[in-house]
Amino acid sequence: MMNKTITSPKGFQAAGLFCGVKQSGKPDLAVLHSPEGATAAAMFTTNKIVSAAVTVCKEHAANAKIYAVVVNSGNANTCTGTKGLAAAKLMCAKTAQMLGLKPQQVLLASTGIIGHPLPIEKITSGIARAAKKLSQIPAGGLAFARAIMTTDTRCKQAVQSVTIRGKKITLAGTVKGAGMVGPNMATTIGIFTTDAAISKAMLRKALSIAIGQSLNRLTVDGHQSTNDTAILLASGKAGNKPIRKADGDFKKFSDALTALCTNLAKQMALDAEGATRMFTVVIGGAATQADALAAARAVANYDLVKCAIHGGDPNWGRIICAVGSCGIKLNPDKLTCSIGGITVFRNGQPVDFDPKKVSGIIRQKEHTIVVNLGIGKHGDFCYGCDLSREYITINADYHT
Amino acid sequence: MMNKTITSPKGFQAAGLFCGVKQSGKPDLAVLHSPEGATAAAMFTTNKIVSAAVTVCKEHAANAKIYAVVVNSGNANTCTGTKGLAAAKLMCAKTAQMLGLKPQQVLLASTGIIGHPLPIEKITSGIARAAKKLSQIPAGGLAFARAIMTTDTRCKQAVQSVTIRGKKITLAGTVKGAGMVGPNMATTIGIFTTDAAISKAMLRKALSIAIGQSLNRLTVDGHQSTNDTAILLASGKAGNKPIRKADGDFKKFSDALTALCTNLAKQMALDAEGATRMFTVVIGGAATQADALAAARAVANYDLVKCAIHGGDPNWGRIICAVGSCGIKLNPDKLTCSIGGITVFRNGQPVDFDPKKVSGIIRQKEHTIVVNLGIGKHGDFCYGCDLSREYITINADYHT
Repeated sequence: MMNKTITSPKGFQAAGLFCGVKQSGKPDLAVLHSPEGATAAAMFTTNKIVSAAVTVCKEHAANAKIYAVVVNSGNANTCTGTKGLAAAKLMCAKTAQMLGLKPQQVLLASTGIIGHPLPIEKITSGIARAAKKLSQIPAGGLAFARAIMTTDTRCKQAVQSVTIRGKKITLAGTVKGAGMVGPNMATTIGIFTTDAAISKAMLRKALSIAIGQSLNRLTVDGHQSTNDTAILLASGKAGNKPIRKADGDFKKFSDALTALCTNLAKQMALDAEGATRMFTVVIGGAATQADALAAARAVANYDLVKCAIHGGDPNWGRIICAVGSCGIKLNPDKLTCSIGGITVFRNGQPVDFDPKKVSGIIRQKEHTIVVNLGIGKHGDFCYGCDLSREYITINADYHT
Repeated sequence: MMNKTITSPKGFQAAGLFCGVKQSGKPDLAVLHSPEGATAAAMFTTNKIVSAAVTVCKEHAANAKIYAVVVNSGNANTCTGTKGLAAAKLMCAKTAQMLGLKPQQVLLASTGIIGHPLPIEKITSGIARAAKKLSQIPAGGLAFARAIMTTDTRCKQAVQSVTIRGKKITLAGTVKGAGMVGPNMATTIGIFTTDAAISKAMLRKALSIAIGQSLNRLTVDGHQSTNDTAILLASGKAGNKPIRKADGDFKKFSDALTALCTNLAKQMALDAEGATRMFTVVIGGAATQADALAAARAVANYDLVKCAIHGGDPNWGRIICAVGSCGIKLNPDKLTCSIGGITVFRNGQPVDFDPKKVSGIIRQKEHTIVVNLGIGKHGDFCYGCDLSREYITINADYHT
């Protein structure tokens, strides 16, 4: 059986189980172990309110070698005060104790409801059990992926490989998504592994590029979580000549990581809370790169666009309205818009088109909206998903 | 019968009827007439894509005297190119012709779907009929209020009076709201009348203050329309000593106008698309005024907060998350939050509270969320409403 989980790259073991946080009884605790240690890179939310897990993880991520990652779902450990901070430290300490490590060699993440005390006894006893179940077989990685889920309906995993100077390098990742997805510098929770040999600086650079081009280009509700965390561990077991500078080898590794993360971002879009389809917004002809990204995000985040897509409705006026309201430089007479390759608005003038045909395109699993601002040379893109009644149902009743 | 419409102040006549724009057969054309002319102030959307009506109205609003306002609903006349601009000019020309005016003495507004050609023949023949129905009786004002509605389920009207130096001054207004409400410098469509004698400069100042404190503090979906227009006409018929500077008389007038607009803003919140309840977000202790407003808007616009309120769910963590993500200066350890007077989070620590009691408060027609940032002296507020499945239903199927 091919291993499609985060234990696919050499040098990793994983486990996941139910420890008692989630009322549903679904898995809620995950541990990843790198017995000989790994180089680590991590990125975090830029929300000014952060989980205690983020505070502790940021500190530990500076270490040269990381040996384990512990993640709990069902409780964000955010807005939980000094007790929350102590609980986050205990998660690392317990993991370290079980695996013979120092607490600062353990990274962690939490996801779930904000403002509820973390049931730390349940978690520490769960860590003790998980540490004994750690395994390199696919079942271990799959259990990990399942245990980080919250309102996700499917677990999201991907594997990518690349050959560098004759050595096969494997990369893998799992993310949780679903709701509160409007990442900024990080993603909900994403745990990535690779067996590449690569310096910490280059690993950080590759993670930053990959997340920037994939998960940071995805928006579900434009809401940036307090817990966004992306962790990438590199075991160095592939035996490649270590990547230490931004050369051709780095480019190959970085491109493979970006492809992996793009795959995961699209899985997230299609499994977003209540989502039935996804879309890509491509902006061209912008005066600046920042304008292009702002416009792409504005369209992908616009509830009225998302509702129209849910209804299969070619209501392109809402796309133009979103572009006009996001504060970028534009000339209304230069604007052109197409949906799935069919032009609906050209140089500020409406174009006759077949609404049934465009509606058919919108109703597909995936389609692309292109807006050309016609005033510059910059372009960017963003992924979004439709907004459905189901999103409301999930989020009106999540707490109780 | 007391007149609660925009013909309540002396010097105004109104009419509204169905001219054929709306497929539903509901009223879609409104005309307001001030036979002896009025001083006018107007505010418009800051969206960079604007309706042809906004382009023409901006030009005309500079005139010293305005005699009429014409509004159509069901079609925004936006993204309609050069033909749209010609149609907007024709709306004014036809109104002027019927009432013996110059086109530039007529203001106009359009609201409805973006990107569809305006059926101008239907509108001009409607204007011809409406001009013959103009009346000062309440039925005229009511017909006007009904004809500017789009997805509104109720027409929104308010009257306010104030006595200045022994003279009774009346103010009245009607707004359309429902969806795409995240005004910035103006509101969806708001038409206001008063019989006060007041200079153009002071009228503009009063409108700017009133809209700023009321309709600009309301957000339904954070979406700024391409057609936002607020028009205030002052007939001068009350016989008061003309208000020409920012003195006590001006303050009285300005306060009355703000009260009128606040009344209308709340009516809009409660009739927002799919809304079942409204809430006020009050921010205190901010480092700057801009921070306070940004935080208030962030909370009121946050889909997850709006969903939780719809579900009657005291999920206060989402409020804190919204505050943390809006880029303002804050210290997590100084944050305090209360819902309906019950503290749920104090100085960065969760507080035990009775969730059933808070849920009961949230389920009321109106409640207030207070967040104190604890780091400065500035405060501000914003009105919001819950987000329901009905919002999706309305906006997924609006076009087709």
